[in-house]
Amino acid sequence: MRAYDLIRKKRDGGILHPDELRFLVRGATSGEVADEQLAAFLMAVFFRGLDLREELPHWLDAMVHSGEVLDLSRIPGPKVDKHSTGGVGDKISIPLAPLVAVCGVRVPMVSGRGLGHTGGTLDKLESIPGFKVDLPPARFVELVERLGLCLIGQTARIAPADRKLYALRDATATIESVPLIASSILSKKLAEGIDALVLDVKVGRGAFMKTREEARLLARTMVELCRSSGRGCSALLTSMDAPIGAAVGNAVEVQESIEILRGRGPADARELTLRLGVEMLLAAGERDQGAARARLEAALADGSALRRFAELIDAQGGDARVADDPARLPQPRCRRSVRADRSGVLAALDAGQVGLAAVELGAGRARKEDPVDPAAGLLLRKRAGDPVRAGEELAELHAASEPRLDAGEARFRAAAAMGEAAPPAAPLVLERIA
Amino acid sequence: MRAYDLIRKKRDGGILHPDELRFLVRGATSGEVADEQLAAFLMAVFFRGLDLREELPHWLDAMVHSGEVLDLSRIPGPKVDKHSTGGVGDKISIPLAPLVAVCGVRVPMVSGRGLGHTGGTLDKLESIPGFKVDLPPARFVELVERLGLCLIGQTARIAPADRKLYALRDATATIESVPLIASSILSKKLAEGIDALVLDVKVGRGAFMKTREEARLLARTMVELCRSSGRGCSALLTSMDAPIGAAVGNAVEVQESIEILRGRGPADARELTLRLGVEMLLAAGERDQGAARARLEAALADGSALRRFAELIDAQGGDARVADDPARLPQPRCRRSVRADRSGVLAALDAGQVGLAAVELGAGRARKEDPVDPAAGLLLRKRAGDPVRAGEELAELHAASEPRLDAGEARFRAAAAMGEAAPPAAPLVLERIA
Repeated sequence: MRAYDLIRKKRDGGILHPDELRFLVRGATSGEVADEQLAAFLMAVFFRGLDLREELPHWLDAMVHSGEVLDLSRIPGPKVDKHSTGGVGDKISIPLAPLVAVCGVRVPMVSGRGLGHTGGTLDKLESIPGFKVDLPPARFVELVERLGLCLIGQTARIAPADRKLYALRDATATIESVPLIASSILSKKLAEGIDALVLDVKVGRGAFMKTREEARLLARTMVELCRSSGRGCSALLTSMDAPIGAAVGNAVEVQESIEILRGRGPADARELTLRLGVEMLLAAGERDQGAARARLEAALADGSALRRFAELIDAQGGDARVADDPARLPQPRCRRSVRADRSGVLAALDAGQVGLAAVELGAGRARKEDPVDPAAGLLLRKRAGDPVRAGEELAELHAASEPRLDAGEARFRAAAAMGEAAPPAAPLVLERIA
Repeated sequence: MRAYDLIRKKRDGGILHPDELRFLVRGATSGEVADEQLAAFLMAVFFRGLDLREELPHWLDAMVHSGEVLDLSRIPGPKVDKHSTGGVGDKISIPLAPLVAVCGVRVPMVSGRGLGHTGGTLDKLESIPGFKVDLPPARFVELVERLGLCLIGQTARIAPADRKLYALRDATATIESVPLIASSILSKKLAEGIDALVLDVKVGRGAFMKTREEARLLARTMVELCRSSGRGCSALLTSMDAPIGAAVGNAVEVQESIEILRGRGPADARELTLRLGVEMLLAAGERDQGAARARLEAALADGSALRRFAELIDAQGGDARVADDPARLPQPRCRRSVRADRSGVLAALDAGQVGLAAVELGAGRARKEDPVDPAAGLLLRKRAGDPVRAGEELAELHAASEPRLDAGEARFRAAAAMGEAAPPAAPLVLERIA
């Protein structure tokens, strides 16, 4: 078999045989297929796609088995994970994982880092002093069994083909391909040994998918592909025009997560946590949506979800006292209030721009290799649609220096559009795909 | 400027700015743009093209100037080259160059090697004992001035960007792109310092372009692109369903070239030499087509073209006695007559298959790095349309061993279709584009 022939076949719109797809994925992992050939293949896939039934399941299966596949079969009960396609202020994994774990779902969660305007769960968790996201697989399995959850980063041994292909796609402008996105996400998730997956597919200005049609296509592809592998799957399409919750950054988002676990926090972030929690409980076998929600709300109200989070922090080497005393989280050297220069309505708060403001403040990364500042970020005092008086605080910015605050403020002001009225807000959950 | 952004722009159908095209070509030459990025760009070009007016002239110009550009301005008179897109039995450059040189046209010709079913002028010339195709530029210029012609191979200093990009295209299934083919060919030709170029664009079973529409598109693209660089250009679309002439190989094609230069040889090969010669004389300023043809025929009849070829061989280090005594060319260790197993008409002689038979015999290359056998090849005793009696010789095969003859014979028999009648032959020259 020659990579050349397979590139050509895909270029000309052909359907590759399972053996051919495996050859490419194995060649990517071993280095036997040259980078330039993989890049050309990926660009051909950008234009020609991968067939959802004939090609994608085999491509995905080869990616999953390019590395270690965790075996969680000795742990009783359903193992369910959640994946978000990435947003601004999207800390939902942090309150969600302990919440559903308390309700009896095992959550073996492998998360990612932030890049560009989107934040990453790992960066947020690492703002907790001592918290470790690079645990060995045995420890990961042990915590999933004992605590019902563990939150780690992708290791070199999980889906190495995806690691290789993603780096190539990132360099060659072939990220934006539905079959490649779907197989990349699922390869990592299926290697975790889960029984079912809940997807939060973001739509809007701050999301990867700008339109509902694109998001729907991605969600349907992932749901069907995940099911073809024998796992359960459902997806919520959720709005990402404005940031989720009031905190955007790292420590500030952990603090907001703790608020949610205390039964408080911004209504949208709390609601999204509950909606995704219901999906995870349904995926785990709960039949009654109302009962699922009631169990989740009870676990927030009685403090059990927060206690489970504290136990998780402790188990992963972090300072569990932050759960009761968030002031122990890293504090910024500089703060600044950004105030409205006129009265009116905060007509829009562009999530993409707010995400870039967070990058300017130091909370995110412009490039993969950049470090992040755990204490940097912003707290929104007004949300899209809120009336605002001149001089009122719109947001509090956190950063390590005044120049960073200057840059962050400029971006934030570009994100916050004042007007006379706000368009009606999009509903939080736009659509469910199952 | 980042290669990523340029790949993305082309991927999405954008028109690249001249500076962006130069950045990519320079990056290819210097190695500053990674192979995987170039490969992805080339595949995006395969799907999106390069605009003939807005992009291709700048892309080509950058490729020409990626290396040494010969300055032939001190040589008086028009400098004209011919390029063929590659065929089977296509030795035409060998008789054509000395023929038009005798008629006052300077021919600075940089040729290529054979690959797959097509032969290469360099391989054929090297079958002449001692003939050298890797002369230094100064010697090349000197011979063009003194003899009116010189035939060499592409050096590492001529259009190095093309060398790099071609190797990538060859590995990534991005050869078959009209703008990439046109700019690749022209980059080498324009670096020779020519005033005009005559193109022989092959169409048919043994050609790169299988249909007249494809060939016409390539010819029109090259003619317009070459003219946009300030050079003259015309193209003939010529038939490549069956091999040109009766000889396919290396030494056998040199021998047939000598026949043509003696005013003999197969009618089709002689006619194609004359038609392309007329084009070159017109490109060099001759106004009258009839007069041009008469001058060429006279140079064949009086032996001056053959003498010029002998002078060229001598000047390039070869044994000039082959011009009078072709038996001095390498002779095969084994010969075999392939005979008809029934009577009828040789209905077709598929050029592509005959070319592959020559590869099996050792005359061509399956892979770039393979050597060629100068003595291997075949002599067609019957041509498409000829009546054949059972037991009559169809071809004589030359090779270094019996197993090679076996393999060559099997391929040759697959190429030669016997029938009751032959379809009317396509005209030699299908169309002229100027």
